[in-house]
Amino acid sequence: MALSILGSTGSIGRQALEVAADLGIPVCALAAGRNGRLLETQARRFRPKYAVLWDETAAGELRIALADTEIRVLSGMEGILEAAAMPEADTVLGAMSGAAGLRPALTAAEAGKRLALANKETLVCAGRLLLAAVDASGAELIPVDSEHSAIFQCLNGNPEPKRILLTASGGPFRDFTAEQLKTVTPEMALKHPNWSMGPKVTVDSSTLMNKGLEFIEAMHLFRVPPEKIRVLIHPQSIVHSMVEFRDGAILAQLGSPDMRLPIQLALTWPQRLPSIAAPLDLAAAPPLTFRDPDLERFPCLGIAMEAAGKDNADCAVMNAANEAAVAAFLSGRLSYTGIPALVRRVMEALPGLPGDSLEAVEAADAEARRCAEACLSSIS
Amino acid sequence: MALSILGSTGSIGRQALEVAADLGIPVCALAAGRNGRLLETQARRFRPKYAVLWDETAAGELRIALADTEIRVLSGMEGILEAAAMPEADTVLGAMSGAAGLRPALTAAEAGKRLALANKETLVCAGRLLLAAVDASGAELIPVDSEHSAIFQCLNGNPEPKRILLTASGGPFRDFTAEQLKTVTPEMALKHPNWSMGPKVTVDSSTLMNKGLEFIEAMHLFRVPPEKIRVLIHPQSIVHSMVEFRDGAILAQLGSPDMRLPIQLALTWPQRLPSIAAPLDLAAAPPLTFRDPDLERFPCLGIAMEAAGKDNADCAVMNAANEAAVAAFLSGRLSYTGIPALVRRVMEALPGLPGDSLEAVEAADAEARRCAEACLSSIS
Repeated sequence: MALSILGSTGSIGRQALEVAADLGIPVCALAAGRNGRLLETQARRFRPKYAVLWDETAAGELRIALADTEIRVLSGMEGILEAAAMPEADTVLGAMSGAAGLRPALTAAEAGKRLALANKETLVCAGRLLLAAVDASGAELIPVDSEHSAIFQCLNGNPEPKRILLTASGGPFRDFTAEQLKTVTPEMALKHPNWSMGPKVTVDSSTLMNKGLEFIEAMHLFRVPPEKIRVLIHPQSIVHSMVEFRDGAILAQLGSPDMRLPIQLALTWPQRLPSIAAPLDLAAAPPLTFRDPDLERFPCLGIAMEAAGKDNADCAVMNAANEAAVAAFLSGRLSYTGIPALVRRVMEALPGLPGDSLEAVEAADAEARRCAEACLSSIS
Repeated sequence: MALSILGSTGSIGRQALEVAADLGIPVCALAAGRNGRLLETQARRFRPKYAVLWDETAAGELRIALADTEIRVLSGMEGILEAAAMPEADTVLGAMSGAAGLRPALTAAEAGKRLALANKETLVCAGRLLLAAVDASGAELIPVDSEHSAIFQCLNGNPEPKRILLTASGGPFRDFTAEQLKTVTPEMALKHPNWSMGPKVTVDSSTLMNKGLEFIEAMHLFRVPPEKIRVLIHPQSIVHSMVEFRDGAILAQLGSPDMRLPIQLALTWPQRLPSIAAPLDLAAAPPLTFRDPDLERFPCLGIAMEAAGKDNADCAVMNAANEAAVAAFLSGRLSYTGIPALVRRVMEALPGLPGDSLEAVEAADAEARRCAEACLSSIS
């Protein structure tokens, strides 16, 4: 096999390269946004056929920097799509962040690749489109998120779960009162206890919007209706998620909070190989607890669960509004409790936009961002 | 499929009949020891071809009682073996208790049946013989114990676990000091918090000998060496056991403490059907904890782990000595801490007996019981 990594300079991409190095998996393409410096280092080490930067200027600089190698430097979305569909790649890791990852993931699916998918937006905004592409091409879709990887492992091909039990750490404010939540600052929100992540995901984890997005992803990935997914707050983040079967048996996947494990699994499945991820010693683990989420204090989860069932662009609108809201919160222009308020306002302003093509989804996304900006001043 | 139940009047047998009734599985034979009254009721309801009682006198009475039916009443070990090998049965539930269950289970394996095995002694005393019979005939061996069923479900055909994590409630005395353990009476030992079981198993659960026997069973069932099995004390008995894979991922099976679930799974696997077993609500469950067992306070587990690796009759000697010791404890002739002391004494007196045939195993068993009786007076 050869691996094409879309988003190689991000956290998932860097860890995927650790796994590839450990297992000796050849890398045929590395693609990133604008971090030419790191991409050069990665390219010199892994010797892919293509090194791709979305940013044209950065790509130009990289082309000069790598002039002494055989590596071909591509640029723009066009270059990224070439890396997503190249014949040499049998596995494509879709790890670009945000809406930029959508088109490359769809392209990899259309090309019939094994798509190891880490990009949330693809399934959230265009889940039905992605599944249609997978079904049409015979591509294989394997999740990289720790939760969805856990569910994938528990299902192990069983297509009929009674229920998916999606666990959530609950974030650092899980025990805050509604009053306390109003006082949350960006500094407070950026301290997440269990996983090390970027600022956007960290805030999403604290509002439970991250779990809402995962809820929508799970619905598509495992082709179950929303009512078959139950979110459970599990502050210890040791059980990565579970599946309840028709007979009442529950299978759970547990592990240390190390993304290299689900990344590796997506690359090697159905094989399991020894991993560089840290093992979990349950005798040293804290007591494992589970409780229902509080949708009153954490409205983002409820908003997402509601949008999940709609077959229009509601999820894309929600996702874009949330991105805008989190950015506004992090730059001090919106309060913490303003995040769900803004998302809800945008969704009420843009009900039922069509989502039946990539263009429609992208239009809804853009419209939602404009609307969020316009509504921002009216939210406290 | 049709089901032959060996041990139909015991706890597992009765629950298997509930499952069979619920799923409409035909029952072709019911066999039991001496409880003719219950067997008659069961036979009238399930209309098997054979109703078998080991006890000849009781069988004679049953023959008269069922004279108005088509059901043929068989007797003795010969009758039980006929029920184990009958062509109509594709699945045999081996749920007779004690050493009496050994020969019927072997016979079912030799006949190439699916053997749903609940009898511990078969694997503990004659694990290698049973596996040889399974391999020779192409029989299918599916465990019924909740722990082994959990491991079976987690493995789901994967033959290469890194480690099996066998959970144990730890019994009612898990937090007793060594001094307190000396004061345990039969009355105290017969109160087990999580499962409702017979007196022998209840005492074995409290001494951790039950976990020791399960350790040996797991070794044979999943064909792993003893060093690949780790026992974890998990007082809540919600995680029924786990498997750690080569990549470090752990899969666990969780459920309510209802034996009908693993019984049903052994009958319907690889299908999972809706079950009458109570579902588990994790949001209402207590915190789940795990710790290493204390082999000093609970020496029976260590004795079993040591015997597990031997390919002689050590496990059979241990099992017989333990049965004698528990009986002596329950009848007031041996102290609670005398149980492991007596087992160890017998094992030291009878080292390395051969275990390479059923006859050798049965001879070792008898020898160990005689030795236990002889040693009893010398143990405090």
